[in-house]
Amino acid sequence: MVKPLHPLLRNPVIPAKWRDGIERPQRLLDQVEEDPRYLVDLAGMPIVSARQFTRDRIAQVCRLAALYETSPNLFPPLKGKILINAFYEPSTRTRLSFESAWHRLGGDVMSITDPATTGIAKGESLGDVAEMFNHYGDVVVLRDRNEDAVYEMLDGLRIPIINAGNGVDEHPTQALTDMFAIFKWRPQLLAEHVADGDKARIGIIGVPNKMRTVRSLLIMLSLYAHAFEEVVVICEDDHPYDQGQLEELQQEGLNIRVSQSLNKELPQLDVVYINSIAWVGDTFERMGEDLKLNAKSPLKPGSIIMHPLARGKELSTDLDNTEHNWYFAQARGAVYIRMALLTSVVQRVQHVIDTPDELLS
Amino acid sequence: MVKPLHPLLRNPVIPAKWRDGIERPQRLLDQVEEDPRYLVDLAGMPIVSARQFTRDRIAQVCRLAALYETSPNLFPPLKGKILINAFYEPSTRTRLSFESAWHRLGGDVMSITDPATTGIAKGESLGDVAEMFNHYGDVVVLRDRNEDAVYEMLDGLRIPIINAGNGVDEHPTQALTDMFAIFKWRPQLLAEHVADGDKARIGIIGVPNKMRTVRSLLIMLSLYAHAFEEVVVICEDDHPYDQGQLEELQQEGLNIRVSQSLNKELPQLDVVYINSIAWVGDTFERMGEDLKLNAKSPLKPGSIIMHPLARGKELSTDLDNTEHNWYFAQARGAVYIRMALLTSVVQRVQHVIDTPDELLS
Amino acid sequence: MVKPLHPLLRNPVIPAKWRDGIERPQRLLDQVEEDPRYLVDLAGMPIVSARQFTRDRIAQVCRLAALYETSPNLFPPLKGKILINAFYEPSTRTRLSFESAWHRLGGDVMSITDPATTGIAKGESLGDVAEMFNHYGDVVVLRDRNEDAVYEMLDGLRIPIINAGNGVDEHPTQALTDMFAIFKWRPQLLAEHVADGDKARIGIIGVPNKMRTVRSLLIMLSLYAHAFEEVVVICEDDHPYDQGQLEELQQEGLNIRVSQSLNKELPQLDVVYINSIAWVGDTFERMGEDLKLNAKSPLKPGSIIMHPLARGKELSTDLDNTEHNWYFAQARGAVYIRMALLTSVVQRVQHVIDTPDELLS
Repeated sequence: MVKPLHPLLRNPVIPAKWRDGIERPQRLLDQVEEDPRYLVDLAGMPIVSARQFTRDRIAQVCRLAALYETSPNLFPPLKGKILINAFYEPSTRTRLSFESAWHRLGGDVMSITDPATTGIAKGESLGDVAEMFNHYGDVVVLRDRNEDAVYEMLDGLRIPIINAGNGVDEHPTQALTDMFAIFKWRPQLLAEHVADGDKARIGIIGVPNKMRTVRSLLIMLSLYAHAFEEVVVICEDDHPYDQGQLEELQQEGLNIRVSQSLNKELPQLDVVYINSIAWVGDTFERMGEDLKLNAKSPLKPGSIIMHPLARGKELSTDLDNTEHNWYFAQARGAVYIRMALLTSVVQRVQHVIDTPDELLS
Repeated sequence: MVKPLHPLLRNPVIPAKWRDGIERPQRLLDQVEEDPRYLVDLAGMPIVSARQFTRDRIAQVCRLAALYETSPNLFPPLKGKILINAFYEPSTRTRLSFESAWHRLGGDVMSITDPATTGIAKGESLGDVAEMFNHYGDVVVLRDRNEDAVYEMLDGLRIPIINAGNGVDEHPTQALTDMFAIFKWRPQLLAEHVADGDKARIGIIGVPNKMRTVRSLLIMLSLYAHAFEEVVVICEDDHPYDQGQLEELQQEGLNIRVSQSLNKELPQLDVVYINSIAWVGDTFERMGEDLKLNAKSPLKPGSIIMHPLARGKELSTDLDNTEHNWYFAQARGAVYIRMALLTSVVQRVQHVIDTPDELLS
Repeated sequence: MVKPLHPLLRNPVIPAKWRDGIERPQRLLDQVEEDPRYLVDLAGMPIVSARQFTRDRIAQVCRLAALYETSPNLFPPLKGKILINAFYEPSTRTRLSFESAWHRLGGDVMSITDPATTGIAKGESLGDVAEMFNHYGDVVVLRDRNEDAVYEMLDGLRIPIINAGNGVDEHPTQALTDMFAIFKWRPQLLAEHVADGDKARIGIIGVPNKMRTVRSLLIMLSLYAHAFEEVVVICEDDHPYDQGQLEELQQEGLNIRVSQSLNKELPQLDVVYINSIAWVGDTFERMGEDLKLNAKSPLKPGSIIMHPLARGKELSTDLDNTEHNWYFAQARGAVYIRMALLTSVVQRVQHVIDTPDELLS
């Protein structure tokens, strides 16, 4: 008669070692030689666009992220520093990943999550808000529906800002997270010369002119034209680009084309990047019915699926326990990549890796 | 002509020693012998139901809470740890008590208080939210109107979760807080054999099938059938139980009955537990007009009143300055009991009490 | 064809030394002799009204603020302490300045920013909320539209409270911030005897009976009747005072008059204090069209403009890069003055300045 205990309450939760292990980031560490120059150069730098990254910079940021991932007990280098999380567009995942990254590094966080409770409601200009932030914190993370907001604020800031999504324009730290996940899967892609057998074919299910994650990712991928055999954009449009967007990617040497047929492409793809939401003005539309993945999709053996999350129906949970699930590892990396970037931006690289004095002016 | 200063602004606020003193928790410390086994066993354990507690476990958690209450300067054992406070149902009191407990132990907190600002609004599953929490924090505290939410989330979690109220089902940390308050009042109730003169008669003004605090408290009380002469449930219903609920309590040996007349019972009650809100679906109803306490109620001399708070009109403020007011002491204990539980769940007991190495695997 | 990088993204942000330098607070330090008595006396004291400050207390609080401003690496004296930020009326600027101050001193913060997510929604009394705060934190910062809320809460508090704006009544920490900015501009005003040539004429564009910032500022200014030649209240009303308000200021010796013509007064004013919003019940009205400042206003050379911010159209941004802009320096000081006040109120002065044992009971 006594109500039995739910089976999940009988035992402590056990970390799934296969997913959280450190072998992957360790392989990335082995692949990239430490060079603090590209991190020190980030000190005080606003991070707004994927365009601000070179291959060396991406490699070193990923390396530091991998170092954090494999070394949980580094002395917290951001003790006494304050991050201002200004999320004028709803978000949990991105906001918490920045908060978590900052707290893991020993810093404190102040959040603005509801514009209705702020001076913004009183019509304060972003320039004045920026001036306030200068006095109150050490770095700003901004998400805003308005593409220009980050630039308006930047104009008045004397502390660094990180763009956590500005309308449909960019989301560079998500792109860094994506590259980190790809490089942990196949570190050889980081090499200057990539053997033919190591090159990857990536499919991106999404609309480049309506998805900021896709926009920033494509810009970063274009730096690795030598490592990616082909980029296939899979969506319902024939020409899903803004003016000049495709030409810019091609000029960088990226081999890119559009396809409408997901299932025709899947068997050839090493990396499948799927996204759910295309922004249309202030609202969004989901991807079409045919652009969904599940365990029956004709995925190439050994291929990985990535997703910036949160997911909708486009990505079935029946893939969660398959070898293709790389999206949870990708999510895990989101914290480490932000730890690396934040450490660099607030000029604390020298607290975690050896940095010659002459690099620190 | 100069406006006089408000009298409350003339002097510093002075702690009321009688209420915040340490004699009560000290007596509890004297009553219970330290045994870290029952705390170490909690490492990594989800805390969802009052059913997960044995008498030894309750005693040791209360003991550690009393240790925290009497020793304000213990080295903070949760430095570098992150608590995720996910409150999908409004709350201040419970949310802040967890935040305060965690901060007192040196840790950092990330909060989700408004579902509208979260990915939940986008229809993200609790399983995916759980996966995100795995990467971002060290323990989750969840309150949700939906009874099943905690189990759905638990299914995907690899860090411990603590149920801070799941619909009308359970609120186990409130029950621990209640037991802690009772044991500070009369530590002898913790003994294996309780003398007849020490046994207590407790009245619970509330509805066992609609109040999660009452449900969890009754489950814990049923472990102490030998210490409580009688439990009187006082409400307007004849049979205010879910199917099997009463039978389970009786099977544990609890001497329990229902009464509709508060004033008839009061003169015999040593402990009066009063509650204000009965959940009915997504909304709630207050208790009836006849189920109220004030300074004129026929309370037994020396008896104590408890209330999980926030209170409504059912508990008059004219009782605040009487000997019967045990609800403020109960509220104070809420922080310490959570400090004890959180320390155990994230496996840091060995930082605050001597723990043989062989207990730590 | 490759999209060019926005020019603001090319270089790190560079602090504007002229505005953030330490010469100004250093001059204030030189002016005031350290005397911990007036800070130690604040221990445990609720801070609700500008009336609670004497000249010595203001001077010592400003001195400690200047010490914090010039010494960024003091050991954080509030480690382990918890501030409860209870903002029942929307605010960013004031809320974040308290959070930032507290974090800079090493403490943790718990926030209540949305009454809808709190027990307040359930009709809990402020006395009960106060009782909860006693157990959960070390100091409360309260903003509430209701003038009496701070006193209702104070009645039940055993930890200090700081009034961050109670209706149209007072905002004493803003007034301290204002005085700090004035004294950094001209430290001689702090002297017991002020030479005629050093005295200042201040114009306050605002309505004393509808603006809490103006009310608290006037009370503090009345302590310095010997240092301010004249206070000119500039607004559209003839008699913009509550009953007894003007008389109280005059009784303290303040030379104060009302004027309707901004431009006629400006050429004679050393300090111009402008404010945007006059509260009328639960809503507000902006100041009239004629009461605006811009770069063409007939400002006295060397004069400073102050504004509690956020600003509306009453203060043109074309003044931002002129010598008259003292409002950004004022905003910067907001954090330091609160650091000084908080340190005093929670009795940690002795952690940052030498304090004889006999002062600490």
